[in-house]
Amino acid sequence: MTMIGSGNVAWHFSKMFKSVGIEILEVHSRNQEDAKKLSKELNARHLDRLDYISDETDLIVLAVNDDSIEIVSNQIRTDALVVHTSGTASIEKLSNGRKGVIWSIQSLRKNQETDYSKIPFLIESNTENDAAAIENVIKKISQQVFIKSSEERLKAHLGAVIANNFVNHLYSISQELLTEAKLPFSILLPIIEEETRKVHSFEPKEIQTGPAARGDQKTIESHLNIIQEPELKEIYRLISDRIKKLHHDL
Amino acid sequence: MTMIGSGNVAWHFSKMFKSVGIEILEVHSRNQEDAKKLSKELNARHLDRLDYISDETDLIVLAVNDDSIEIVSNQIRTDALVVHTSGTASIEKLSNGRKGVIWSIQSLRKNQETDYSKIPFLIESNTENDAAAIENVIKKISQQVFIKSSEERLKAHLGAVIANNFVNHLYSISQELLTEAKLPFSILLPIIEEETRKVHSFEPKEIQTGPAARGDQKTIESHLNIIQEPELKEIYRLISDRIKKLHHDL
Repeated sequence: MTMIGSGNVAWHFSKMFKSVGIEILEVHSRNQEDAKKLSKELNARHLDRLDYISDETDLIVLAVNDDSIEIVSNQIRTDALVVHTSGTASIEKLSNGRKGVIWSIQSLRKNQETDYSKIPFLIESNTENDAAAIENVIKKISQQVFIKSSEERLKAHLGAVIANNFVNHLYSISQELLTEAKLPFSILLPIIEEETRKVHSFEPKEIQTGPAARGDQKTIESHLNIIQEPELKEIYRLISDRIKKLHHDL
Repeated sequence: MTMIGSGNVAWHFSKMFKSVGIEILEVHSRNQEDAKKLSKELNARHLDRLDYISDETDLIVLAVNDDSIEIVSNQIRTDALVVHTSGTASIEKLSNGRKGVIWSIQSLRKNQETDYSKIPFLIESNTENDAAAIENVIKKISQQVFIKSSEERLKAHLGAVIANNFVNHLYSISQELLTEAKLPFSILLPIIEEETRKVHSFEPKEIQTGPAARGDQKTIESHLNIIQEPELKEIYRLISDRIKKLHHDL
């Protein structure tokens, strides 16, 4: 196979593929230094230009940023299967005849030991044959592989952003409030741990607690009274309303 | 001491106090059946009426709901220290001469084994003497005891609601999206676990990632495009804007 890219995803996907016996023939990247480094690590050829892609390669992986997928795809003239690795870009960004997507839900960081077997992967192809071929390979890496359309993948990506990036920002907001009360964020770690423990066994909706879930308007008003920032007030109001609606059908 | 209440907090606070050698003389509750049950478990007297509180008691704990604190407090004629256990109610809800608050940040459930030593407690009193007395007792139970004003406690309570109840609702929203994509919520557990692991070592703001943090407006627009519900669109927009502002000073 051929790896296009030399960043975090390229690094981990190369290791992953190699670990299941797939030979990486060549590495190309806009960043020549990183490409040379990665190709050396993989014992692969450093590919100077995209039009020199080997005829022997049967899979070309585009581990490039979303904006580059279309441009790079257009430069690749090949009968091999071309896949990108984005959570949000449609498969249609690829102009090649045989195309696909391999997206790992967990974000990957270079030089960080990662247990790939527990990472869920969403995969896609424009033909059933290639979808099955991708599935066969990724199933050797991970126990959780799902064939999904681009739209389904985008929804899963949105879900991941909400459950990860937005949750992290809520922790930031909590920390701001605790700092105002001259308290360390660490006092919230026990309830954060408990919540994480619970969602392993229960549906989030089933274990919803708090003022909004029990319709405790007095507490909601007390909270709104001490929030100074208008945007935060609005976030508080919207999330509380949504919880109320879900739990009281108001 | 005297325990007023027979719910989750009354149950755990009784066990907690007993475990550090404080004798529970009597239990009173609106719910007579539960009060009798708890008093039996504690080997304490069941107290029929609030005006029969023993002269021997030196601490009266109101583990009642927020709306009842004022009413119950008004019925107690005593020189003993009266404390409530609410995260949101001001100490001023108590009309007694000697008053205080003991709030455990973690929510407690009856009949559930709990390691109190790791639960953070916020405490308060109207005199330094009684604050020190409460601190002495609670320090025997937990390693994390903070003397805080009612306003600071309300801010910490708001922080806990955001980090716990709101986070749980974000998980609910993620699950809704995954269900639309015919995917199980469990595929998000690895990133949820990783986030929880990270906030043990880093400040939430330091580890913020995602489209909003990197100013990736294209991905933000793709997400907004697939969100149908206007309220959810607004939640998405407000949280993304707040992350952008925090990370780009826009």
